[in-house]
Amino acid sequence: MLSIGKNAVRELLGADTKIQKLYVLKGAHDLDKMVEGARAKGARIEFCEKRVLDKLAGELRHQGVIAETSDFEYCTLDDILAIAKGKGEKAFILLLDGIEDPHNLGSILRVAECAGAHGVVIPSRRSATVNETVIRISAGAANHVAVAKVGNINDAIRKLKDEFVNVYCADMGGESIYDTRFDVDTAIVIGSEGFGVKELTSKLCDKVIALPQRGKVNSLNASVACGIICYEVVRQRYSK
Amino acid sequence: MLSIGKNAVRELLGADTKIQKLYVLKGAHDLDKMVEGARAKGARIEFCEKRVLDKLAGELRHQGVIAETSDFEYCTLDDILAIAKGKGEKAFILLLDGIEDPHNLGSILRVAECAGAHGVVIPSRRSATVNETVIRISAGAANHVAVAKVGNINDAIRKLKDEFVNVYCADMGGESIYDTRFDVDTAIVIGSEGFGVKELTSKLCDKVIALPQRGKVNSLNASVACGIICYEVVRQRYSK
Repeated sequence: MLSIGKNAVRELLGADTKIQKLYVLKGAHDLDKMVEGARAKGARIEFCEKRVLDKLAGELRHQGVIAETSDFEYCTLDDILAIAKGKGEKAFILLLDGIEDPHNLGSILRVAECAGAHGVVIPSRRSATVNETVIRISAGAANHVAVAKVGNINDAIRKLKDEFVNVYCADMGGESIYDTRFDVDTAIVIGSEGFGVKELTSKLCDKVIALPQRGKVNSLNASVACGIICYEVVRQRYSK
Repeated sequence: MLSIGKNAVRELLGADTKIQKLYVLKGAHDLDKMVEGARAKGARIEFCEKRVLDKLAGELRHQGVIAETSDFEYCTLDDILAIAKGKGEKAFILLLDGIEDPHNLGSILRVAECAGAHGVVIPSRRSATVNETVIRISAGAANHVAVAKVGNINDAIRKLKDEFVNVYCADMGGESIYDTRFDVDTAIVIGSEGFGVKELTSKLCDKVIALPQRGKVNSLNASVACGIICYEVVRQRYSK
């Protein structure tokens, strides 16, 4: 898999991921430090012409640098629960129900990372997966946040409930997030932009939660809504 | 100016804006209600072939319907202050310092509308302006939120301070938004994704405010960050 552009490569250098190969624009000395960093991580370095990078990057902006790693390594739901336990924190997990737009997935991974979520769960079908575009949009955050790919989101919800995690479904008409307590083990289901959370999925959850809407249009982009909810978790847990 | 696609046209129908012409795909009876609505607003209706709509829409999805209005009507900073006063609410204004990406501007207008901000101020240079793409991305919210285009953001900040509005600059390293009081007349300066708020602009503000960051990457998309801050205003003002 390719990580394309300075931000994505910089984040990769700071992550545990092994870099197999670094493609660098010939003569781009502003990238010397990255080359050094990649070399120290055992990457092979290939200095190449702009056209080679252009071809690898496709429509994405490469800014003279592309890193090649093995495919994105997904984890399991158990791994995510173990991460929370290992940190001695109440679980903070996002479950994505049908986010098909790679831009939204990338942006949600960025939110998850900034807000300190322990992991993100995506279904193996009808969902964007963690590819080059997603990593680029996530500004590299995808390399720092655990992502589990599961056969079925509903099974994941059942398992979380067995583990005494509170599962909240973000959807219109729910209880205000400001009346919801997030200082407990928490998982939040985020639906697709067009269709929201599926009915069966919503029913499995402990509660539906919503953002108060003060306008006429009243629909936020999935990643913006997710950011607002995640930061309410942060506020309740960590601000005085 | 064109409003492209069902959502954008639907929002336009609900707004005060005059529709000059509605282009509708021939035989698309799911659009009958929209046609009726537009006709009631005095719009001329033109039923046309798909290729006409494709050409008008360019790369955007038109879903069989496009509305033509006169150019987006900007208001003034005074208008925005008057809106807040008219509602008997503490001012809630966003100032955008160099948001050049139309997707970010559209998404920020959507946030502003949902959070009930009284208006958004953009500079006339080095900024995305409210065009078709922005309206489409805003899901039509652009038609419901006042946008002022000013020659100089710094002058706008000075004017707001003269009017006793607290002007906060959103940037790294500031005071946590959760320690900031938003139950006063408030304006928030949002910087460009790449460069943040300009130094001079930042210095003019009463305070720098920031989101607590719990990850390693710690950079949120401008519209997501804006959404989180706007909803902290909503929480402090309107939730018990």
